[in-house]
Amino acid sequence: MTYTIDEIAAALGAETAGDTSLRVNRLAEPAAAGAVDLALAMDPKYAAGLSEGRAQAAMLWPGADWRGLGLKAAIFPDRPRFAMAGVTRMMDRGQGFASGIHPSAVIDPGAELAADVSVGPLSVIAAGVRIGAGSVIGPHCHIGQDVTIGKDAFLREMVSIGARAVIGDRFIAQPGARVAGDGFSFVTAEPSNVESARKTLGDQGERKAQPWTRIHSLGSVEIGDDVEIGMNATIDCGTIRNTIIGDGSKLDNLVHLGHNVVVGRNCLLCGQVGVAGSVVIGDNVVLGGQVGASDNIFIGDGVIAGGGTKLLSNVPAGRTMLGYPATAMDKQMDIYRALRRLPRALRDIAALQKTVSKPDGDA
Amino acid sequence: MTYTIDEIAAALGAETAGDTSLRVNRLAEPAAAGAVDLALAMDPKYAAGLSEGRAQAAMLWPGADWRGLGLKAAIFPDRPRFAMAGVTRMMDRGQGFASGIHPSAVIDPGAELAADVSVGPLSVIAAGVRIGAGSVIGPHCHIGQDVTIGKDAFLREMVSIGARAVIGDRFIAQPGARVAGDGFSFVTAEPSNVESARKTLGDQGERKAQPWTRIHSLGSVEIGDDVEIGMNATIDCGTIRNTIIGDGSKLDNLVHLGHNVVVGRNCLLCGQVGVAGSVVIGDNVVLGGQVGASDNIFIGDGVIAGGGTKLLSNVPAGRTMLGYPATAMDKQMDIYRALRRLPRALRDIAALQKTVSKPDGDA
Amino acid sequence: MTYTIDEIAAALGAETAGDTSLRVNRLAEPAAAGAVDLALAMDPKYAAGLSEGRAQAAMLWPGADWRGLGLKAAIFPDRPRFAMAGVTRMMDRGQGFASGIHPSAVIDPGAELAADVSVGPLSVIAAGVRIGAGSVIGPHCHIGQDVTIGKDAFLREMVSIGARAVIGDRFIAQPGARVAGDGFSFVTAEPSNVESARKTLGDQGERKAQPWTRIHSLGSVEIGDDVEIGMNATIDCGTIRNTIIGDGSKLDNLVHLGHNVVVGRNCLLCGQVGVAGSVVIGDNVVLGGQVGASDNIFIGDGVIAGGGTKLLSNVPAGRTMLGYPATAMDKQMDIYRALRRLPRALRDIAALQKTVSKPDGDA
Repeated sequence: MTYTIDEIAAALGAETAGDTSLRVNRLAEPAAAGAVDLALAMDPKYAAGLSEGRAQAAMLWPGADWRGLGLKAAIFPDRPRFAMAGVTRMMDRGQGFASGIHPSAVIDPGAELAADVSVGPLSVIAAGVRIGAGSVIGPHCHIGQDVTIGKDAFLREMVSIGARAVIGDRFIAQPGARVAGDGFSFVTAEPSNVESARKTLGDQGERKAQPWTRIHSLGSVEIGDDVEIGMNATIDCGTIRNTIIGDGSKLDNLVHLGHNVVVGRNCLLCGQVGVAGSVVIGDNVVLGGQVGASDNIFIGDGVIAGGGTKLLSNVPAGRTMLGYPATAMDKQMDIYRALRRLPRALRDIAALQKTVSKPDGDA
Repeated sequence: MTYTIDEIAAALGAETAGDTSLRVNRLAEPAAAGAVDLALAMDPKYAAGLSEGRAQAAMLWPGADWRGLGLKAAIFPDRPRFAMAGVTRMMDRGQGFASGIHPSAVIDPGAELAADVSVGPLSVIAAGVRIGAGSVIGPHCHIGQDVTIGKDAFLREMVSIGARAVIGDRFIAQPGARVAGDGFSFVTAEPSNVESARKTLGDQGERKAQPWTRIHSLGSVEIGDDVEIGMNATIDCGTIRNTIIGDGSKLDNLVHLGHNVVVGRNCLLCGQVGVAGSVVIGDNVVLGGQVGASDNIFIGDGVIAGGGTKLLSNVPAGRTMLGYPATAMDKQMDIYRALRRLPRALRDIAALQKTVSKPDGDA
Repeated sequence: MTYTIDEIAAALGAETAGDTSLRVNRLAEPAAAGAVDLALAMDPKYAAGLSEGRAQAAMLWPGADWRGLGLKAAIFPDRPRFAMAGVTRMMDRGQGFASGIHPSAVIDPGAELAADVSVGPLSVIAAGVRIGAGSVIGPHCHIGQDVTIGKDAFLREMVSIGARAVIGDRFIAQPGARVAGDGFSFVTAEPSNVESARKTLGDQGERKAQPWTRIHSLGSVEIGDDVEIGMNATIDCGTIRNTIIGDGSKLDNLVHLGHNVVVGRNCLLCGQVGVAGSVVIGDNVVLGGQVGASDNIFIGDGVIAGGGTKLLSNVPAGRTMLGYPATAMDKQMDIYRALRRLPRALRDIAALQKTVSKPDGDA
């Protein structure tokens, strides 16, 4: 499929220049662009790349001299990074999943699928499932008993949704995403060594066998509108009530949410983030890759945590956090700098002690 | 399904009060409880919640004045947290997997399944598999060649078990759990830069191409009774012998066990724990979320490691550990406190040096 | 299947001694070895084990006295660890996947499979797929539209490959490995709180709703020859161009590669490594378990990072790194040692201050 410069600019609400009837069919980095590609050069540093490549049209930084760059047409978006969303959506070739219900899918007669829902080969849809109009269930998916999925969902291959999950509109799930497994909640008949360690912060007394008994998850998972869940991410059920993900929040690959977690609206949880049971996360929170959050804490609105941060206690709204254990980012940067000087500081202390301990107190 | 207060209390061995013939059909948090819910209010802090909700029956803290709280019936468990196990087991509505062998399952004629085993739609059971009585294999599962699974297993959807794994009774596997993939073991024809770095703890000399050759995993995985494995967790095969998980141990979502690992009995490995090859873990060990363990170390009986701890060397039995690199928890807490004061301490040292270096030694 | 000592030694290019016509059918640890096992005792510390077990043949350390150890035959490999690769390859019993195309597989008529390709039960092969000679696609796999896979691939169960991925020869994928999901790339219409925090390294100003808009992934994933990907690992598509994994690189279980990442040749990425978007990794790089790399950095040729290391900025070639944030390993070891002494050092500083502040400057 090809698009004119005009069509693209109209979709983005962007200014144009030159021959806007020119057609392109692909995006490309400037140096790698061919004659029918739209080069992405939204920063002056790409000017050299444009002359290496063969693009005739480009998306450019504000004020760029498109003629001088050898182009026939140009698009000038207001906010280049945001324009990427629009132009990549237009040009996405997708996965090629066929429309309709594949004959190999196993669909319970009690499931209610809107007329235009697609179900890929070898997917299983259990009894009591309801799926809204425009939704696409990819190949090899499992939709458990009494699950509700809203309109315009897009599930890639091998997604599984456990019983009774309730999911809003425009849900996107990447391959292998798992919703509504049982929570990890176990208890011993007698107080366990973990319970005693939490009290003492120290070593446990006598050690004895402690068989764990399961606390079953009676809740499920409740997901708002416009949520996306990454490959092989895992969302546990709640114990008594549902685990909750608010509207507009996005979870990356291999993210783990424990039982009873509440994620607010418009959060980003990056790759391999782990959130332990009963954590409450506010709105607009961004957790970098491999961030961890201890059980039962809250993380206020707008908190940002850098990659690898371990949040071990409550975090007030608006904080930018870093480190293990987490502190405010600027404090952590001071600590890092100080740490590098620490081995030398210890030698300085020893020298001072030697000096000061001299009988006459002289340097 | 509904239960009388009497039936629930009998199952828990708990005391009751009031109209114990009252029927409930669900558990609920106190403030959210409806008229036919059993409110869970096992701590005095929930008293206010009870009056917000409409529960007529509740599980209460010892000595609570149930009449004063406006209830018609009450259950008083001995150990409230343990009672949760019993009551959630009673009320678990499960996944609704149908009994029997689904016609779309692909089962090798050489597999031996006990008479009452269930196999969900689109599951594959290979030759030589043996599955014990009462076991339920969910939809989309793969049970590899010559695998043995004991009695009363419950496998959720999309679980895979590689060839020759041997699994005990009452095994539970959450969606996407992976047992018996190949270990991650590679060797170069000449000593690699890792081998030289391990020797010198420092930078490597000349760098050259080093193609890796696979060491195949000839062992499989051996799992005791009462083991549970979380969503998308991964358990590698052993190299020569089996990787082993002892009776009663529970692994949370996205946990990784490398080749040759031995996990003892009644351990809890929380979300995203990673255990490198050939680690030996004792009994009653609890590893918090995102804990890591370096290859070839041992972790003694009863060790507890807080979330995010990186265990880089052997840990004696009974220790409570924290940090990266891990130390005893109390030592780590001292270090954390000291770290916060470190930037200031460096300034203090500088001031002291200035003072002491004054010719006359005066302050 | 059994092998003579001669056959094994010939495959390894190793020296032998004794009755090399002796047949063995399994490898074993010395103490656990039976009469028809080949004991692996490539270090003198295993001598005692050999007398506990019943092996008649062993792979031994250089110069071992095989007769004195009670053996009838011995193999003396040059580089014992490398010999493990050869001998385990010979003895690998594999997964028992049947040859040919299973009738339950769903294969698009437009897919081009070489004549001897095997496809397991319930796998899906989409239109436009090309798979080279000798490849084995296991059960429950999904190969997306227009994917190319080279010769002699081996895909275990439940592997999924998204549309347009291009994969070289001898590719190995463990159960649940995911290639070519969408990248995690979102943008707000107005600058987000992350963008402002990156600028200020500190707290964000006013907090407002910030709905995220998706940047679609138009690239796919490009994988060289001899690459292996572990269980439930996840490889994202690139945004404009492909995400790339070079020849000979191996990724362990639960590894995450973000969009646009480039991994060089002959790298090892151990369990749960997370690599954020647009990171460029050189050749011969080894990242230990749970290592993280921040987005947009480069990691030079031959870099080694110990388990748990968080690489937050560029790493020059040849460095051995450790810690969070990462430093050169020797520097980190100094910091660790100093940290343990830090609480005491702070007390020393306080004492010094007290001493020095005395009016007469005396100790």
